[in-house]
Amino acid sequence: MASSTGDQSQAVRNGLRTKVLTLHSMNPRVRRVEYAVRGPIVQRALELEQELRQGVKKPFTEVIRANIGDAQAMGQRPITFLRQVLALCVNPDLLTSPSFPDDAKKRAERILQACGGHSLGAYSVSSGIQLIREDVAQYIERRDGGIPADPNNVFLSTGASDAIVTVLKLLVAGEGHTRTGVLIPIPQYPLYSATLAELGAVQVDYYLDEERAWALDVSELHRALCQARGHCHPRALCVINPGNPTGQVQTRECIEAVIRFAFEERLFLLADEVYQDNVYAAGSQFHSFKKVLMEMGPPYAGQQELASFHSTSKGYMGECGFRGGYVEVVNMDAAVQQQMLKLMSVRLCPPVPGQALLDLVVSPPAPTDPSFAQFQAERQAVLAELAAKAKLTEQVFNEAPGISCNPVQGAMYSFPRVQLPPRAVERAQELGLAPDMFFCLRLLEETGICVVPGSGFGQREGTYHFRMTILPPLEKLRLLLEKLSRFHAKFTLEYS
Amino acid sequence: MASSTGDQSQAVRNGLRTKVLTLHSMNPRVRRVEYAVRGPIVQRALELEQELRQGVKKPFTEVIRANIGDAQAMGQRPITFLRQVLALCVNPDLLTSPSFPDDAKKRAERILQACGGHSLGAYSVSSGIQLIREDVAQYIERRDGGIPADPNNVFLSTGASDAIVTVLKLLVAGEGHTRTGVLIPIPQYPLYSATLAELGAVQVDYYLDEERAWALDVSELHRALCQARGHCHPRALCVINPGNPTGQVQTRECIEAVIRFAFEERLFLLADEVYQDNVYAAGSQFHSFKKVLMEMGPPYAGQQELASFHSTSKGYMGECGFRGGYVEVVNMDAAVQQQMLKLMSVRLCPPVPGQALLDLVVSPPAPTDPSFAQFQAERQAVLAELAAKAKLTEQVFNEAPGISCNPVQGAMYSFPRVQLPPRAVERAQELGLAPDMFFCLRLLEETGICVVPGSGFGQREGTYHFRMTILPPLEKLRLLLEKLSRFHAKFTLEYS
Repeated sequence: MASSTGDQSQAVRNGLRTKVLTLHSMNPRVRRVEYAVRGPIVQRALELEQELRQGVKKPFTEVIRANIGDAQAMGQRPITFLRQVLALCVNPDLLTSPSFPDDAKKRAERILQACGGHSLGAYSVSSGIQLIREDVAQYIERRDGGIPADPNNVFLSTGASDAIVTVLKLLVAGEGHTRTGVLIPIPQYPLYSATLAELGAVQVDYYLDEERAWALDVSELHRALCQARGHCHPRALCVINPGNPTGQVQTRECIEAVIRFAFEERLFLLADEVYQDNVYAAGSQFHSFKKVLMEMGPPYAGQQELASFHSTSKGYMGECGFRGGYVEVVNMDAAVQQQMLKLMSVRLCPPVPGQALLDLVVSPPAPTDPSFAQFQAERQAVLAELAAKAKLTEQVFNEAPGISCNPVQGAMYSFPRVQLPPRAVERAQELGLAPDMFFCLRLLEETGICVVPGSGFGQREGTYHFRMTILPPLEKLRLLLEKLSRFHAKFTLEYS
Repeated sequence: MASSTGDQSQAVRNGLRTKVLTLHSMNPRVRRVEYAVRGPIVQRALELEQELRQGVKKPFTEVIRANIGDAQAMGQRPITFLRQVLALCVNPDLLTSPSFPDDAKKRAERILQACGGHSLGAYSVSSGIQLIREDVAQYIERRDGGIPADPNNVFLSTGASDAIVTVLKLLVAGEGHTRTGVLIPIPQYPLYSATLAELGAVQVDYYLDEERAWALDVSELHRALCQARGHCHPRALCVINPGNPTGQVQTRECIEAVIRFAFEERLFLLADEVYQDNVYAAGSQFHSFKKVLMEMGPPYAGQQELASFHSTSKGYMGECGFRGGYVEVVNMDAAVQQQMLKLMSVRLCPPVPGQALLDLVVSPPAPTDPSFAQFQAERQAVLAELAAKAKLTEQVFNEAPGISCNPVQGAMYSFPRVQLPPRAVERAQELGLAPDMFFCLRLLEETGICVVPGSGFGQREGTYHFRMTILPPLEKLRLLLEKLSRFHAKFTLEYS
């Protein structure tokens, strides 16, 4: 209030009154939110694009946005079957058109039958269309080797982000040193830090081990938890697998150890598994937390609370714009589950086109369907190219002096570590910038390559990284990686 | 914490440990959220539908959901042009098909050009596609008789609800008696009460005047504000025009008076104008808060902070499932506007199909376009039928003894007042139910008609109402209104 009054008198002196809503008087929690993936560097990229369009001369001809996991923006083509069925759902007059395969028509009719008024334009129930929840449950069962999934534990959402925020909201309580603490990996995907800031919860950092390919170490979880217990009430543990921004794929042993830890320490588990289809490295395999938990048997299987998140934005389809997603909750208290549904109902329903798309992703064409061959070919082509790009990224970066990059076992990003000369660090500090932000801004200005500084995800003090997607087309990516490596060499020379 | 420990020892006695997340340990603000439009009565309606499908005998053959403004679920057909363009956007292979009109193809190409990777599947910038923000600004200018609108003040959203929550989030600050208070109408649309509960803000009720067709009276705003100032810091005023659930359309004089009040009392104005196309009564006309504000000139026009919300879910199109919407902010502090964009960026972007749909709604076919005639005919047919249904609702209810209903000047609902006999009120209290909830539950069980009790929206103590949409097809609506009136007579007799 004091600062607001101060504004007021300043304004009165200027003959103008202050706004009701100012930086000083606004929600302080919102002010503290940061989201680097779309932060200042992306704002600057937008400005540069505008300048290029206006004919301003630059040392590059296009801005390459390697800041965000947005496959179709990077030129990946949508999967034909998905878009055929969606077009039929959007405009059912097309159901009589001979230019669509029969299985696409059947799928569209099946989805429309499950919609209010047989239209994508009606609200669905807040948890999502029942038929689609059932299809998701069947997908989970297949994925997990037959372990049952209950459609009533599946809630569709507006992308995975929406569901993650909803579950975190449920968990936040207490004041002062009883405030809810949530353990998140460092480096993390900044949705977590942003949401915890907004909710006023305590972010408890546990560090992934860069020396061991970003492995999650339970002794580090213990350390983080013990330190946190002095000033908050840790109640939840978030895991991102495959890792974002770090690209590691957790072993089954690691997942078991995390589950035992969560059980012993009474932590609600959030498993961000949106990259479950994006596993590239030989020897790596995706294990869902749900499957591992169930296979561990008592006392874990029947008691450990877990929420697992998935999305239509990643995988082979990359349909980010449709904002489809779901959460499966396991061992959640029935009354809390009712409360979650109530909370979701205030926002009415997730976008219905995104729900329809999710349905197709979880139940793609079967081998006997006319669309199967093409669907399979398109899917495999995308995944094979992603695997090649993951490998290429690791190779090129590791050949560059002063850059080291862990294997991109999965997901869509590399998170290489860069050596920055002390004089560059000093220069950044003079400018009031994090050193890796300074590096990334210079990179953007000189090459048009837009990547996100490691400081936006968190990293060990004194280390510097950036996150770069592996999504540009293969040959473009190769040029990009080489250009970036050369820029780093030049930058290092400049500040040595 | 105390109750959580209590749970724990109870559980230990039972040989089972408690959940980490229970009704006691969860976020208490979320627990306090209520949302009647999808509350217990709608849950019961779902169960009844399931029982009907299973062949359970009921005194009715179908459940009629008059609880929610969901036009297409009630059989309204989508507008052809909108769905044609959307299908072309979803599946651009159709751009070569002869079965789509040229203007639909041009519109689809224009939208796709503005999308990342020319695909609805890419993320957009968080404020929404720039081209669509420009089209929205032009729509606002046309609507407001040429008063300029700046695309940079337009932010697209996931339905209007999303934008309303975002603006409310910015406004919430303070603790104890400096907590932000927000004035909302009673009766209100429960998104407001639910959001304020979740954010921990203070809900400040001002009552609409049922005797004067739910008019908004500035002296009542004064009363509410004065009373609130003792225990919170009122900083915002929400107005819903046309009214939900109350259906009134505000006069220009009233809007001017509200703006003067907000200016003098330093309140940020939120104008929920999602029913701006839904005005039926002769003599009623929609005036946007923005237009009135700008025409009032200094000191109001250049200073009063305002956010105005609109949606693709209502109007003549009723495309609820696509979750399209926008907010225009006026006189918002530039730094706060940056903070709002940052907050939106954490959730990446509004669903792109909903953005595309919004574009078509704000720039429909021009008179020279091939699709114009059909578009215009479909639009007029929907609006004319809604006007007839608004009239019919008022007539039938006012003929029924013990029911009185203000004119449905706009929006999509009637909010009739019902007399409930004292013995019914006692019976409800014995059952622990609000009397109008008891009435609505009995109505549902005996007739299959699902309406929402007035207590879910707020009403003067001792008065009882329900909200019912005017959306069922005309002849069905007539039967429904008569059935409901007869049920009320029977119910009154039963408890007299």
